[in-house]
Amino acid sequence: MRKAFHEELDRITEELVEMTRLAGSAISRATTALLDADVTLAESVIAADIELDTLREHLDETSIDLLARQQPVATDLRMVVTAMRMASDLERMGDLARHVAKVARLRFPNSAVPAEFRAVIVDMGRVAEGIVLKAGAIIAARDVDAARSIERDDDAMDDLHRRFFERIAASDWAHGTEAAVDMTLISRYYERFADHAVSVAHRVIYLVTGTYDANAESSHEDDEDHVRPA
Amino acid sequence: MRKAFHEELDRITEELVEMTRLAGSAISRATTALLDADVTLAESVIAADIELDTLREHLDETSIDLLARQQPVATDLRMVVTAMRMASDLERMGDLARHVAKVARLRFPNSAVPAEFRAVIVDMGRVAEGIVLKAGAIIAARDVDAARSIERDDDAMDDLHRRFFERIAASDWAHGTEAAVDMTLISRYYERFADHAVSVAHRVIYLVTGTYDANAESSHEDDEDHVRPA
Repeated sequence: MRKAFHEELDRITEELVEMTRLAGSAISRATTALLDADVTLAESVIAADIELDTLREHLDETSIDLLARQQPVATDLRMVVTAMRMASDLERMGDLARHVAKVARLRFPNSAVPAEFRAVIVDMGRVAEGIVLKAGAIIAARDVDAARSIERDDDAMDDLHRRFFERIAASDWAHGTEAAVDMTLISRYYERFADHAVSVAHRVIYLVTGTYDANAESSHEDDEDHVRPA
Repeated sequence: MRKAFHEELDRITEELVEMTRLAGSAISRATTALLDADVTLAESVIAADIELDTLREHLDETSIDLLARQQPVATDLRMVVTAMRMASDLERMGDLARHVAKVARLRFPNSAVPAEFRAVIVDMGRVAEGIVLKAGAIIAARDVDAARSIERDDDAMDDLHRRFFERIAASDWAHGTEAAVDMTLISRYYERFADHAVSVAHRVIYLVTGTYDANAESSHEDDEDHVRPA
């Protein structure tokens, strides 16, 4: 029974890692679709989100079934509950990638991205893909040290997000407010994507060490939005 | 044991209803703080968010403890897992109210809200408070009919959100892009707040009927952002 339980838990872990892979692919392709005004690629990202939704549903069902059949306690119970939470984060990351793709589709055949923002969006896409793949490696290896260092990747995203907003709010903005709305939300989608990756990493720390900062998942996202007065 | 289990579950339900009350108070007071540029009130909303965080933590601990001790199966198991998810939604709603309050604080002594947006923000605050209080009543009464009708409140929020964005993107915008960024995010915070209330209501439907549209919590939020081309 213990062996069967741990085999099932291993399968859940594999599904979580697969979800990080799908979320990474989604944000990477959504970024390309946005930058290239590629509506076919955007459609493909939007359609593929169902895979993450389905994996999450499957993972939830498996987890609840596991709780019912095996009635785990202590660490084993914590693992199953934590896996369900990670799946929720990862599914949400898929939604955020889909949001990015939807902006590309909405503005097609135009590009949603003013030329001066291309470089920072390239960077945001790269950080976003990197952080979710790192989260996948952290889940697979239960790597607490790497999980603790993921804040640095998130800091890089927060810096990009802040620069983005300062640029939008600058007095010489010449792209109209529709583009300001689009860019504000795009920047927020990337930033939230990274936040959820941090949340996944924090859950791995909780799993391994038994301590979790319940505020961590929200507190670090809080002060990056809105441009501070000079 | 069954009696003890259901008494504990009743206490969890009471905590969830208390969380809806706190989230309703938070969004209502955050709205006032934003409209009146009342930094003291904003600070109080920001500080009070810890209460929701603490309630959520407590509810999570109680739930995991309940799973370990009582080893529920079937409907009972589903209830505990669903309660944890509702708590997560409600804690996030508190975060979103805090975000609104933070904008009020950031722009103080100025008002973050251009005069022409006051009325729509009053409406958004009212819909947000109403929808979370309705979610509380739905949790308390396990009212599936009311849960199904909550989409209408969310539609009202989506309409406000859409009008908001159209106004920001209009060519005669005269408030600068900093205000455009602030208003874009404010509108999104309210809209996401309502989305989480809908998610809570959907979870009650799942609890009572056993069916849940896993996509519902994200799909209905998807198409309201960004102004469509004419």
